Amino acid sequence: MRILVLGGDGYLGGPTAMHFAKKGHEVAIADNLSKRFWEAELGVAPLFHIPPLPKRARAWNESGEKQIKVFVGDIAHNHRFAYSIFEDFRPEAVIHYAEQPSAPYSMWSRLHAVNTQVNNVAGTLNVLFAMRKFTPDAHLIKLGTMGEYGTPNIDIEEGWINIEHNGRKDRMLFPKQPGSFYHLSKVHDSHNIEFACRVWGIRSTDLNQGVVYGTDTNETELHSDLITSFHYDHVFGTALNRFATQAVAGIPLTVYGTGGQKRGFLNIKDTLACVELAALNPAKPGEFRVFNQFTETFSVMDLAERVKRAGESLGLSVKIENHPNPRVEKEEHHYNPKNTSLMSLGLKPHYLSDDFVRGMVKKILSAKESIDHHVVHPTITWKQN
Amino acid sequence: MRILVLGGDGYLGGPTAMHFAKKGHEVAIADNLSKRFWEAELGVAPLFHIPPLPKRARAWNESGEKQIKVFVGDIAHNHRFAYSIFEDFRPEAVIHYAEQPSAPYSMWSRLHAVNTQVNNVAGTLNVLFAMRKFTPDAHLIKLGTMGEYGTPNIDIEEGWINIEHNGRKDRMLFPKQPGSFYHLSKVHDSHNIEFACRVWGIRSTDLNQGVVYGTDTNETELHSDLITSFHYDHVFGTALNRFATQAVAGIPLTVYGTGGQKRGFLNIKDTLACVELAALNPAKPGEFRVFNQFTETFSVMDLAERVKRAGESLGLSVKIENHPNPRVEKEEHHYNPKNTSLMSLGLKPHYLSDDFVRGMVKKILSAKESIDHHVVHPTITWKQN
Repeated sequence: MRILVLGGDGYLGGPTAMHFAKKGHEVAIADNLSKRFWEAELGVAPLFHIPPLPKRARAWNESGEKQIKVFVGDIAHNHRFAYSIFEDFRPEAVIHYAEQPSAPYSMWSRLHAVNTQVNNVAGTLNVLFAMRKFTPDAHLIKLGTMGEYGTPNIDIEEGWINIEHNGRKDRMLFPKQPGSFYHLSKVHDSHNIEFACRVWGIRSTDLNQGVVYGTDTNETELHSDLITSFHYDHVFGTALNRFATQAVAGIPLTVYGTGGQKRGFLNIKDTLACVELAALNPAKPGEFRVFNQFTETFSVMDLAERVKRAGESLGLSVKIENHPNPRVEKEEHHYNPKNTSLMSLGLKPHYLSDDFVRGMVKKILSAKESIDHHVVHPTITWKQN
Repeated sequence: MRILVLGGDGYLGGPTAMHFAKKGHEVAIADNLSKRFWEAELGVAPLFHIPPLPKRARAWNESGEKQIKVFVGDIAHNHRFAYSIFEDFRPEAVIHYAEQPSAPYSMWSRLHAVNTQVNNVAGTLNVLFAMRKFTPDAHLIKLGTMGEYGTPNIDIEEGWINIEHNGRKDRMLFPKQPGSFYHLSKVHDSHNIEFACRVWGIRSTDLNQGVVYGTDTNETELHSDLITSFHYDHVFGTALNRFATQAVAGIPLTVYGTGGQKRGFLNIKDTLACVELAALNPAKPGEFRVFNQFTETFSVMDLAERVKRAGESLGLSVKIENHPNPRVEKEEHHYNPKNTSLMSLGLKPHYLSDDFVRGMVKKILSAKESIDHHVVHPTITWKQN
């Protein structure tokens, strides 16, 4: 299958591209390298050095594996670049990660909120128009987030819900209550994509993904230039990464608020498996299909306690600290999201084990001297910066 | 009250500003004049000439009425302009019409889809940030559209719906299924505004407005330079306007498809009354309140038949033609939207009468020679252009 990975220089994009190439698919990636700019803008860096994209691609393409084609350019601000990829490569599946991925980044200022929404929404619109023009039968696999739903007081279904109201029924989009301008941008995307499916007959799977953890996949381990990024900072680092790094650095784990916030999580290996299952079992023409992509739910405090346990078993002294919550979110709430679709397609989850967390802490210990203590504490707040 | 009307050069913005000034409020308007550019781009013009904004403002300000302050600039692409208005004028109520208002325009091409969404979404974000910074207690009255809801098979509530699911309950945003990139932009706005209310405590009323008809208000009739725009073209002209103009021009009324599509409608005088009721009864801090702003529902065929009847009573020969539908929409559907909120605040509707339609036809007859026959038939289709 011809597979185009948008955002191929990113945390998930690189591993995804290699995963499909390893399986014998024809793979191309596109990226505007903006994540590297955002890191520079914030003064943060992945814990382990990520080589420039050409070097990463060379490491892969010289390894004897099936070649990956690289396009560098901006799909959001240069639609001719987007169109040229679709015209040239003619993808059958498009895996779209090419978005600004951080909630705190989007809440930093007006500029960052607007840039996040314009980048994500216009990029996805350009992809939809490119598909309509050049590959109307291709399958768009779009990465959304579980954070689009927020934390409603009812069970979270997979994108759609049957509503009975005043004696009549309809199947409707599940109402969303996202928690940042970033999460809102994904909700906007979902609405735009649903429309393109309904009106143009585009096929799409919207993957509402939980928080991904882990950095190692079968392919990232093949060569040191093929590793993917590990962020522990307050902007791009998610809870588990940040806690494990704090444990190593001897900084108390910063649990925001009570830590009762529950979220869906999954291992990066399961991300690759889910995206592959979606690609091999495409949506039908005109279908807007939504899968909730996570394997387990944890509260933030659960994660902190797991990290504390793992750190202590390795001889570290680990403290947990309830930090004033920089976000506006419910800290105690109902959370029962469904995730049966990918399981029925055959997903075999890698559940989070104490061994896995210990492995993470050990890996971070090997780079202890690279940890920047200044970028761990949250400085971006939801109320006013 | 200090009232800022964004989009003050538009069809509704001008009459709204004059309506509030007449009642003794302190009024300012802002506009980037882009509607005049879009008209030029499409080669269409209002049936009756609309003087440039400075001339319109002068006509008002020299009439002895309370002065209206004018700001010319772009709130979507120049946030400093937006900020400077809020810092200078310090509005207590912000009436936000400053958006690209046409569904066909947004479906014209990729460029028009992206520009519509970026203009509308970024403009509203800039307004929200300006409010947070300078006037956090102001009330944002945002014009949305009934078209955000689409035509679900259940009754349409006002913005929110109580959902019971698997034995649990929540009050959630009413799921929306909009019918164009324009309508989608309004859905995106609504989500962004709801978030700003929830997280920053902004007060907002989202007015999901039906199709407005009519051009005459108490103030537009004061001076010939104070009239507002009447569009009959296929892009900015809505059904009733287009039909009445076709009746005068001797062109068959172009009903799209069967004409069974039902929509909410209201007289422009009721728009002014609704916006005033919203301003005088503001949302509470942190409240995202939604009112459905229409007074009656009609099918497209109902309207065509009313125009035919009015035209024939004036001696015109009027034919109705079922034109292939350029849009993708249901032509036969359930439609029971609620509109009790504005009625309970005291709205006294001007219902559509045969006399009113006859008056419209007569007015158009007076400008019969100005009708451009080339801009009436739809050339923009939803499927492919």
